[in-house]
Amino acid sequence: MRISELAGAAGVSVATLKYYQREGLLPPARKVAARLAEYDDTHLRRLRLLRVLREVGEVPVERLRSLVEAVEDADASVHDVFGVACDALHGAPPEPGPDLRAIADALIEQGGWDRVRADSPDRDHLAALVGAIFDLGAGQDEAAQKGAATYLRLVDELARFEIGAFADPDEADRDVLVERMVVGQVVYGELLLVLRRIAEEHYSAQRFGD
Amino acid sequence: MRISELAGAAGVSVATLKYYQREGLLPPARKVAARLAEYDDTHLRRLRLLRVLREVGEVPVERLRSLVEAVEDADASVHDVFGVACDALHGAPPEPGPDLRAIADALIEQGGWDRVRADSPDRDHLAALVGAIFDLGAGQDEAAQKGAATYLRLVDELARFEIGAFADPDEADRDVLVERMVVGQVVYGELLLVLRRIAEEHYSAQRFGD
Repeated sequence: MRISELAGAAGVSVATLKYYQREGLLPPARKVAARLAEYDDTHLRRLRLLRVLREVGEVPVERLRSLVEAVEDADASVHDVFGVACDALHGAPPEPGPDLRAIADALIEQGGWDRVRADSPDRDHLAALVGAIFDLGAGQDEAAQKGAATYLRLVDELARFEIGAFADPDEADRDVLVERMVVGQVVYGELLLVLRRIAEEHYSAQRFGD
Repeated sequence: MRISELAGAAGVSVATLKYYQREGLLPPARKVAARLAEYDDTHLRRLRLLRVLREVGEVPVERLRSLVEAVEDADASVHDVFGVACDALHGAPPEPGPDLRAIADALIEQGGWDRVRADSPDRDHLAALVGAIFDLGAGQDEAAQKGAATYLRLVDELARFEIGAFADPDEADRDVLVERMVVGQVVYGELLLVLRRIAEEHYSAQRFGD
């Protein structure tokens, strides 16, 4: 397809498309004549991925670059790319104190998530949040300890469901799977937060509204 | 307490504290002498609230102002303030098409959340996300319809659990409850996303890692 068709199909302007090209975020087009470039589904998929990450995930362009590098590394497995993509999307966490990090690691173990990389930055993200919750004077009494088990179980159920829903078991194309996983992470992450706010408005009204 | 003690207890610098004062985000101090101001738990609570919203929620200062106005309106119930706070935290959504909005309303009904305001901006946020998911060619087949029921049930369970955990049933102080609810929304929202990423890394490794 031509550049204008590609832009239309992906829902971006031609100017945005050219900007992504200059930034090296799109694979090169196939030259069919001196001034005529031909685009295909690879470009469309990449463009939709970039659009969602920018619009829904509000990912800055610098971070899109490391994501694109991971996607373009043909030797990386779906899982490898997914890990790199998640890291790129969320930036580097602050370094936590050893005590908080130990608590974060224990929570991950309690969740049963033993396949998480030992050097996943999300371990430090989690430690920082545990610190923020402790600073607020919450999260350390017996009720909180009990609550943690319920909470981890709910998150586990949710994550298992989502990974199953993102990745069609019949889909063999690595690039399609990567797109589904990364976009799923971002879009369904937003969806989760919005639905949670809606449900909490409901329960807040039930509890405090009358 | 003195200004330096207050800043230390809240974990912010004196400069930040003075900045919030100039921006009208803190209640006035009690003047105990010409050049001596005395602060109390009200200030500490407000400052901790502002700090969490800025640091964890990355809420811009303009939006903090509408939040503070809601918190300071003594006639507003906990639920009223919670609603205003949630709206202030998340900005105005784009106006969705009527079809998407109808789908969003139907999802909220399917979730059983009948206490959600008819004019809650989250209805439009949800509609926009449904649109983004449809644009990706997802969310419209039979499997997705079935999945929605599972997903809504999980979110419902999560929200019910969180509202119960945020608000101690014995707590009668409106301002304390408001702080817990708003901070809970933001901090536990981040916690949810981080734990979900961690759990999804685990399930992605199980599925694609070998």
